[in-house]
Amino acid sequence: MAQNIYDSPDFFAGYSQLPRSVHGLEGAPEWPSIQTLLPDLAGRRVVDLGCGFGWFARWARRQGAASVLALDLSDNMLARARAETADPAIVYARADLEGLDLPAAGFDLAYSALAFHYIEDFPRLVRTVHQALVPGGHFVFTIEHPIYMAPARPGWIARPDGGKSWPVDGYAVEGPRVTDWLAPGVVKHHRRLGTTITALLEAGFTLRGLVEWHPTAAQIAARPTLADEMERPMMVLIGAQR
Amino acid sequence: MAQNIYDSPDFFAGYSQLPRSVHGLEGAPEWPSIQTLLPDLAGRRVVDLGCGFGWFARWARRQGAASVLALDLSDNMLARARAETADPAIVYARADLEGLDLPAAGFDLAYSALAFHYIEDFPRLVRTVHQALVPGGHFVFTIEHPIYMAPARPGWIARPDGGKSWPVDGYAVEGPRVTDWLAPGVVKHHRRLGTTITALLEAGFTLRGLVEWHPTAAQIAARPTLADEMERPMMVLIGAQR
Repeated sequence: MAQNIYDSPDFFAGYSQLPRSVHGLEGAPEWPSIQTLLPDLAGRRVVDLGCGFGWFARWARRQGAASVLALDLSDNMLARARAETADPAIVYARADLEGLDLPAAGFDLAYSALAFHYIEDFPRLVRTVHQALVPGGHFVFTIEHPIYMAPARPGWIARPDGGKSWPVDGYAVEGPRVTDWLAPGVVKHHRRLGTTITALLEAGFTLRGLVEWHPTAAQIAARPTLADEMERPMMVLIGAQR
Repeated sequence: MAQNIYDSPDFFAGYSQLPRSVHGLEGAPEWPSIQTLLPDLAGRRVVDLGCGFGWFARWARRQGAASVLALDLSDNMLARARAETADPAIVYARADLEGLDLPAAGFDLAYSALAFHYIEDFPRLVRTVHQALVPGGHFVFTIEHPIYMAPARPGWIARPDGGKSWPVDGYAVEGPRVTDWLAPGVVKHHRRLGTTITALLEAGFTLRGLVEWHPTAAQIAARPTLADEMERPMMVLIGAQR
């Protein structure tokens, strides 16, 4: 079973105050880039793996999606998502992505935002998603970048020239990374980017897009702290097709 | 035109003493991983982009390749390659990969080892290779990993715990990187891994494999300095198919 850190009170309180929790999809600077990977949603059956507060589920319905099955491990997330949704075509359900089962060929799009780095057995999950999609179905997801996740002690190093660098070590050593983010002892599972791509190809997916997200100049002007994201990528956005 | 650093006397003298120059393919620790990406070569027409001393060209012929067109910018490399080859089915020719032309559908495999990071206009090169392959033809190449190439000042940083980290900065800032390796002022062109993959997909290739190379335990036991390669990847190995 995956760690249910989102139901830890400190973590949930902190997470609820992030821009992406207050402002939804528009509060996530990578959202414009994610949209370039998404297919037209009109009439599509969508499954959202790690739906959080349901922002994407409601957006997908506004784009014309026929239905959204929105799954999350966190009772806190699901409670708020249900409270903010009045749409019978969105079904929220509690599910652990570690060991997930999904009906065969039940969906046209599987979507997930920043959830899979909490999952230990990624190849199993990818096979589950593959059989749950119709042929031609799309799989679009974001994860923390392994550059961001690899180091034993993540955190900026000041350079003599006044700039800063991100220390990378243990990149080839896959497995758990325990960090303190919003709460102590958050467990993530580090994989090389090549390992993530290989799991997709071995399950039968065709890669359609790979974006190591970075901000635009306009985004940095509006939110100067985003300049850090030019130094090392925090996120990877991946599009694949069955 | 790409920089012709291999014809600089200091660089060539240094390069000629590397294990991969003395021992050929077996002297390159990534060679076993490259082989997993290669198709069966029997009867195939091969083009080698940046052939160096011709080790791969001669190996491909021993595997049954019908012919090898082996291209390099360096007169020094080509002179030694010709001197060490007695095989009329291997043709060596001088060519600049920057601005390269190749005949349409003339090859079954395009191969390149550690050459493309010297090329500025990578998308043009990828389109050239795509039209030069028959449908179903393979494209297998290795490049320096962008983690290795990104930093302004590449070099290990000692950690308080006795380990070492590789400083990553400017990862999203693509363009030239000037370093001193075997000779001063070697110019390489940094691209995000996502940019490399996107160029392949946009040219019409299907991705078949992506390996961020790291050594096996047996390789580290035989050559302990390879342990560094567990901390940060130096090379990416990519397989694609038209």
